[in-house]
Amino acid sequence: MGATRARIAIDAMGGDHAPAEIITGALRAREELDVEILLVGDPQQIKAHLPQQTNFGQLEIVPAEGTIEMHEEPLSGIKRKPKASINVAMDLVKQKRADAVVSAGHSGAAMAAGLLRLGRLKGIDRPAIGAVLPTIASKPVIILDVGANVDCRPKFLEQFAIMGSVYSQYVLGVNDPKVGLLNIGEEACKGNDLALRTYELLEKNPQVSFIGNAEGRDVLSGRFDVIVCDGFTGNVLLKFAEAVGEVMLQILREELPQGLHGQIGTAILKPNLKRIKQRVDHAEHGGGLLLGVAGICIISHGSSQAPSVFNAIRLAKEAIDHQVLEHISSQNGSKKQSATSSSEANSDE
Amino acid sequence: MGATRARIAIDAMGGDHAPAEIITGALRAREELDVEILLVGDPQQIKAHLPQQTNFGQLEIVPAEGTIEMHEEPLSGIKRKPKASINVAMDLVKQKRADAVVSAGHSGAAMAAGLLRLGRLKGIDRPAIGAVLPTIASKPVIILDVGANVDCRPKFLEQFAIMGSVYSQYVLGVNDPKVGLLNIGEEACKGNDLALRTYELLEKNPQVSFIGNAEGRDVLSGRFDVIVCDGFTGNVLLKFAEAVGEVMLQILREELPQGLHGQIGTAILKPNLKRIKQRVDHAEHGGGLLLGVAGICIISHGSSQAPSVFNAIRLAKEAIDHQVLEHISSQNGSKKQSATSSSEANSDE
Repeated sequence: MGATRARIAIDAMGGDHAPAEIITGALRAREELDVEILLVGDPQQIKAHLPQQTNFGQLEIVPAEGTIEMHEEPLSGIKRKPKASINVAMDLVKQKRADAVVSAGHSGAAMAAGLLRLGRLKGIDRPAIGAVLPTIASKPVIILDVGANVDCRPKFLEQFAIMGSVYSQYVLGVNDPKVGLLNIGEEACKGNDLALRTYELLEKNPQVSFIGNAEGRDVLSGRFDVIVCDGFTGNVLLKFAEAVGEVMLQILREELPQGLHGQIGTAILKPNLKRIKQRVDHAEHGGGLLLGVAGICIISHGSSQAPSVFNAIRLAKEAIDHQVLEHISSQNGSKKQSATSSSEANSDE
Repeated sequence: MGATRARIAIDAMGGDHAPAEIITGALRAREELDVEILLVGDPQQIKAHLPQQTNFGQLEIVPAEGTIEMHEEPLSGIKRKPKASINVAMDLVKQKRADAVVSAGHSGAAMAAGLLRLGRLKGIDRPAIGAVLPTIASKPVIILDVGANVDCRPKFLEQFAIMGSVYSQYVLGVNDPKVGLLNIGEEACKGNDLALRTYELLEKNPQVSFIGNAEGRDVLSGRFDVIVCDGFTGNVLLKFAEAVGEVMLQILREELPQGLHGQIGTAILKPNLKRIKQRVDHAEHGGGLLLGVAGICIISHGSSQAPSVFNAIRLAKEAIDHQVLEHISSQNGSKKQSATSSSEANSDE
């Protein structure tokens, strides 16, 4: 892929604001990120939302029929509607006509389609959704799983740690990423059954730099580059984190303009408040990465508007450019070796 | 207890800032809340931290020997040190010399001491720690469990829902509290095994007003008055919520004063920013309630300083004044009946 342009298949029909906002975000990404866009969905609807005299350079419409609705059971929906936009988008990656998929549709359906159409990477039992959050240390943290696997086994979390480390190293550019296990205390003896058993696995895995348990308060501290957890806890945490930014903005909106001095001060601070909004707003952070399937898939929020779609496409492009899949596969090749080697051994990286 | 003054046993030796901050907070509570304070711990150390010419009205020092250290295994520590401050404090409640215990020491040890010294309320399999958080709807939500039980069974969460509803109704003054199950989606079919099975129990329990699943984003929305979850997820969420307030304040501190207009605007807004800090600062919220043991116990943060200790004592006083234990016991009496009645029946309340 190196020198050629990244080709991103966009599920144009998925999400609360599809297709209008999806298309707007995708067209902006085509301009600013210099990617090729494949809009997957109902051609008539897509065309109706394209600006007049759209230039079709680096832009293609790929026909699909229908979508998986939010109330549908993902797996059966995916099977019943082979021509649904998310299925067609995944097929484009399978056929190597696209390098990545971006969807703001039913996230369970996207995961099911990814699994069924693309399959898993070797050595991965369960794909995970990773979310990248900003920290106070001006570097991001990747948390996984945030929703793909609600009931996990210790070895799943061990694989999440490897995939998260690869992503942190190759996409986020972190040298020797520090891995933490989300838990209720710092001590190795703390936690539920899953955490206790995962701790043991991570401690002796030479492929990850496990530095111990991460409590809820540590998530945004920047002490950890990768935090692993089951998809239930991760999903609750992520959705809370996203909402809390909105809560904070609301508190600011309520309290800052109170009184005459409040109104004056708030007016003076307008540009600074805008920067705060940008730092806090989750739309800036794009979406989750489906790690562990044999293709790059970005799962955005159902509520995504154009800026989120743009950021999701940027995320996809970064994953393509940094060859995330190749690195995860090679790590899992080395895993087979290291499993028999001593825990003293260093990672192959 | 009604007309007489509430008597609060304070573990003066527990917490990172014990005994100095604990004593300062307790003395303030004595003045402002008109409660009787029993300071439990090493008399010499306590006396050394009392202001000169302290008036001993409504104040008593109750001798104890040692504390449970943070690295100690709670249960064995509690058993090995029968005269530790937390044990002596619990005994004061058992002997009816105090109405409640407040401790900022080892929370596991406080729970173990509560269980061993006071026992469980009838009908409660596992006590839970409840945390009260502010919401954007200007009414609080109680979340439980936030750390007492890391691996839960559905019936534990059902009992948490009953205890949380009692607390919401009688202490927080919510009429017909709305109960939610912390989960990863709104639909009944979403969740891990625990959530799926708990949903079924809550749905047919006539004692609680269960209105469905609460996602992470709903926690602070005010839609729910009581949210139940396992102690692992709840603990991660609570610690994250507490830290995120600090993160937000840091973002404000970084961004607001930038530039000349930033400095001027920030100076003008000082009183408004102080109010924001108060709304966000977790020290304002006191601590967790150990619900389900046969005594009122407030478990504060290890990092508690005087304001947190004061707020924890206020929380204890409210629980005493509103007879939380009596209401939980009577609810569990009515539970036995309702278990055999139809799911159509309404709560006895």
